[in-house]
Amino acid sequence: MKVIVLGGDGFCGWPTALHLSNLGFEIVIVDNLSRRNIDNELEVSSLTPISPIGERLKTWKDNTGKVIKFFNLDIAQEYDRLLALILAEKPDAVVHFAEQRAAPYSMKSSRHKRYTVNNNLNATNNILCAIVESGLDIHLVHLGTMGVYGYGTAGMKIPEGYLDVEVVTDSGERIQQEILYPANPGSIYHMTKTQDQLFFFYYNKNDGVKVTDLHQGIVWGTNTPETLLDENLINRFDYDGDYGTVLNRFLMQAAISYPLTVHGTGGQTRAFIHIKDTVRCVQLAIENPPPKGDRVRILNQMTETHRVRDLAKMVAEMTGGEIAYLENPRNEAPENELFVKNERLLDLGLEPTTLSQGLLKEVTDVAGKYSYRCDRNKIPCTSLWIQNQKKHAKETVLK
Amino acid sequence: MKVIVLGGDGFCGWPTALHLSNLGFEIVIVDNLSRRNIDNELEVSSLTPISPIGERLKTWKDNTGKVIKFFNLDIAQEYDRLLALILAEKPDAVVHFAEQRAAPYSMKSSRHKRYTVNNNLNATNNILCAIVESGLDIHLVHLGTMGVYGYGTAGMKIPEGYLDVEVVTDSGERIQQEILYPANPGSIYHMTKTQDQLFFFYYNKNDGVKVTDLHQGIVWGTNTPETLLDENLINRFDYDGDYGTVLNRFLMQAAISYPLTVHGTGGQTRAFIHIKDTVRCVQLAIENPPPKGDRVRILNQMTETHRVRDLAKMVAEMTGGEIAYLENPRNEAPENELFVKNERLLDLGLEPTTLSQGLLKEVTDVAGKYSYRCDRNKIPCTSLWIQNQKKHAKETVLK
Repeated sequence: MKVIVLGGDGFCGWPTALHLSNLGFEIVIVDNLSRRNIDNELEVSSLTPISPIGERLKTWKDNTGKVIKFFNLDIAQEYDRLLALILAEKPDAVVHFAEQRAAPYSMKSSRHKRYTVNNNLNATNNILCAIVESGLDIHLVHLGTMGVYGYGTAGMKIPEGYLDVEVVTDSGERIQQEILYPANPGSIYHMTKTQDQLFFFYYNKNDGVKVTDLHQGIVWGTNTPETLLDENLINRFDYDGDYGTVLNRFLMQAAISYPLTVHGTGGQTRAFIHIKDTVRCVQLAIENPPPKGDRVRILNQMTETHRVRDLAKMVAEMTGGEIAYLENPRNEAPENELFVKNERLLDLGLEPTTLSQGLLKEVTDVAGKYSYRCDRNKIPCTSLWIQNQKKHAKETVLK
Repeated sequence: MKVIVLGGDGFCGWPTALHLSNLGFEIVIVDNLSRRNIDNELEVSSLTPISPIGERLKTWKDNTGKVIKFFNLDIAQEYDRLLALILAEKPDAVVHFAEQRAAPYSMKSSRHKRYTVNNNLNATNNILCAIVESGLDIHLVHLGTMGVYGYGTAGMKIPEGYLDVEVVTDSGERIQQEILYPANPGSIYHMTKTQDQLFFFYYNKNDGVKVTDLHQGIVWGTNTPETLLDENLINRFDYDGDYGTVLNRFLMQAAISYPLTVHGTGGQTRAFIHIKDTVRCVQLAIENPPPKGDRVRILNQMTETHRVRDLAKMVAEMTGGEIAYLENPRNEAPENELFVKNERLLDLGLEPTTLSQGLLKEVTDVAGKYSYRCDRNKIPCTSLWIQNQKKHAKETVLK
């Protein structure tokens, strides 16, 4: 089975490519190395040392005998090359990670908003267009986000993509209908993912394209068994204010003995999944494509939910660190409940790695081991959601 | 009051600019003349003779003494010029017509799909970004489409943008919620308008941008009192298979004594509005902005609904023409009901021009008068909704 991994050099794409390659899938990586270039722009780098893509692929071949092809191609800009590649490779599935994926980065400035919109929307439309134009029956697996749902509805578990509603007609009759869960994005980045859903809806309805949209929680953890084979294969660990997830920033702060910085009350509840489970979920999605003619299949790809302040407490207890509360740069509810249905991936065989099992390993094997590479000025989040918001975060840079 | 009209050289934009200018609004037109360029690409032209934009504006000034400024600017590509213009002109409102607006054109080929997506989505995002970056309190009035709703729900009038639904929680409790009407686009063009709604939702929620989204029906009629002042001011009459609306194509066919071509059974019900009412609706929207802090205001901008075959019969009876039924190139339901709420614009003072009043005038004063300019090979619709669909339309070109 042949799979093209769009964005296969990134944090989720790289371990996915290795996991699938290891299982015997024929893998082609397409990436414009934008994640590395954004590191240059932000003057940050992964805490873990990331090898050049050529060295990564050579090391993988040396260790496993398996060959992964690589094409440096911007799928949002180079449609003709993308189509030619699909026609030449004839993949069974395309996994689409090729989007700008940090909410704070998408809010940094007008330019970052426009880059995120232009890149993400053209990327998704181009791959759908190319699949249709190729005439091939290719299954598209897209990495979406739990953020398309907004953050929770009182007393209701978030379903997997579709919501049963009742509408009362003018004559008083009740109509039952299943609709796409109403979108409620919390950033420009999340907005593009809600717009992606409409691309999938339309191309599936009009052209019968088979699509699985994985609504992923916040990914934690760094490595998979494959990325641990050799240091040249190591995965990214981002701890900066734009790309570092909340958990990574806590781990980093703990490792360098600084207070764990919680934004607002820390009452925001978020969904999480370990990177090892991400790669398994993508595998399960590819191995179980929706039947031709079915609507877009949406799976919630998360395994547990936590409040941000509870995560901070967990890390603080594990490491003996302190917690500091700062003003929240995001325009969002200070506290929310979040209950999520995730039965479908569990039914397909996913066995979750829990935070309580894996977190200590992250503290010692990653954050601690590489803490000498940390630039502590990069940890605070400086992107503001509203233009004239007080630039508080800049004043609280750790010294 | 100053108003920037984006797309002010087009079929709706031009008469809107004149109507507002005539009322004393200070008008700035921004247009990249893409509609004229697409005529060149398709090797068609408006049945009515369209003067160059400079001549249009000079004639307007000569006839009324009123000056309309014009900037040739691609708002989807030239963000910095757009922002500079907004900062220099400081408009109270921006009317956004600057999108590729033909469903068949958006389906012609992969290139046309990608152009429509790239142009429409970046145009909308850029104007929203520029409004936020300018820091000015500008009311954005956008021309949306009835097509975002899909075509009708059995037994229910389509509301103005928002739908009341009930959701049953896991504990059996019923929650009432008002949601954005679930999107159901019928073409790539319509899809971009459903994605526009998410732009408006987000920028309104996060940045407080005041937005009115006008969900317009199919516009018929050619002229307004202002465009009739001088032949140099005349508005477009498109009759080609891509940009010609169903009614214009019937009128054209009647004028050249050819059968009126109905796709499928003609059971598709559509919403209509006269161009004279379009310009009045935009005026009413500008004069009644939503209060700061309110959500996006959505108004249904249509005045009557008809089945396509009934329109054909109406035109046939008026002109003595025949009707021919052809296969439908669109991927859509053959028959649908359509009931639409449109009280809000009526409450603001709209007085509809009905088809029964105005249609005969179109037959004689426009289609008949300019029929010598018609290229009859351009009337059939050759764009197909599905790639491998039988290319029937090409074989039925009128000889």
